[in-house]
Amino acid sequence: MITRKEQKEFLDEAANYLKKANIVVTQKEIDSIEIADYGLSELKVHGLAILVYVNTDRVCAKELIMLPTQTCPQHRHPPVGPPHAETDEPGKEETFRCRWGKVWLYEEGDATPNPKCKAPAGSEAYYTVWNEIELNPGEQYTLLSNRWHWFQSGPEGAVVSEFSTKSRDELDEFTDPNTKRETVIKD
Amino acid sequence: MITRKEQKEFLDEAANYLKKANIVVTQKEIDSIEIADYGLSELKVHGLAILVYVNTDRVCAKELIMLPTQTCPQHRHPPVGPPHAETDEPGKEETFRCRWGKVWLYEEGDATPNPKCKAPAGSEAYYTVWNEIELNPGEQYTLLSNRWHWFQSGPEGAVVSEFSTKSRDELDEFTDPNTKRETVIKD
Repeated sequence: MITRKEQKEFLDEAANYLKKANIVVTQKEIDSIEIADYGLSELKVHGLAILVYVNTDRVCAKELIMLPTQTCPQHRHPPVGPPHAETDEPGKEETFRCRWGKVWLYEEGDATPNPKCKAPAGSEAYYTVWNEIELNPGEQYTLLSNRWHWFQSGPEGAVVSEFSTKSRDELDEFTDPNTKRETVIKD
Repeated sequence: MITRKEQKEFLDEAANYLKKANIVVTQKEIDSIEIADYGLSELKVHGLAILVYVNTDRVCAKELIMLPTQTCPQHRHPPVGPPHAETDEPGKEETFRCRWGKVWLYEEGDATPNPKCKAPAGSEAYYTVWNEIELNPGEQYTLLSNRWHWFQSGPEGAVVSEFSTKSRDELDEFTDPNTKRETVIKD
């Protein structure tokens, strides 16, 4: 749960970050940006602003905007079948491309010694994959489907493009059972 | 067929256009840019520079860079089956998002009266779809699979992001039988 004021402040910042990243968007797109707190009610710790360019049955493209040292909680995109997809298909595959700032992505694989990020305080138990990929502007990484992953922005925040198969956020699986994909706004 | 000098000049311009569009890319990506003349040997008339960010079995993302008033010839992306795909699937679906400059996209549908572009001289017979979509920076259009389309840049050129399903350029169908997807470089 976040307040309308928190939502508005992040929306304004997200528009500023897109300007700093020199990404041209329409006013309609600005107005469509989603602020997500993952149901954890600590927006500056766990959170993300999401601008969806396109999300058809086959292709999705987005910009993800993160404030300084903000975390997208550990999750994965499981295989999908009817009624969510016409036929069985693997979970969402996504390529993250850093456009501005810096982001560290963690996924399954050998744990990186001395990782650059810490799990958010109090949620350590839910951060179990530590294979670190550092992404600076112009760098990208392709994450295959159904792999646990999470990411955290650097000290200035980040703008990250995501190129993927269809987004079905409601089907994401999170490690932390307190996590909810829907953000409740408190008036 | 183009000369190595023509190729080099367009590559240098493509890198400049990406800078003008404030799109950060790595040197390795710059070195991977493809110059395509569609086998028509008139690069400044029919041509494109292509930077592929990612092209997996499921998702592709690219930047397309066009010199002033340059045309990508009319083509379509037909359905795909074995041996080119594991199972039958529709042809490539693509979203074009203008980042810099201007581009006019033409696809199937009602012909636009007084279209802004002309077909390249001598090739008029091969340009048969005239439903015009104008794309300025921040504007985009999703083209469904197997639909004839072509596009032409404005007087300053253009940088256009393409978000799509897998690219299999070798399977594209062109209206002009003289067109070939492969570009031969003459030393």
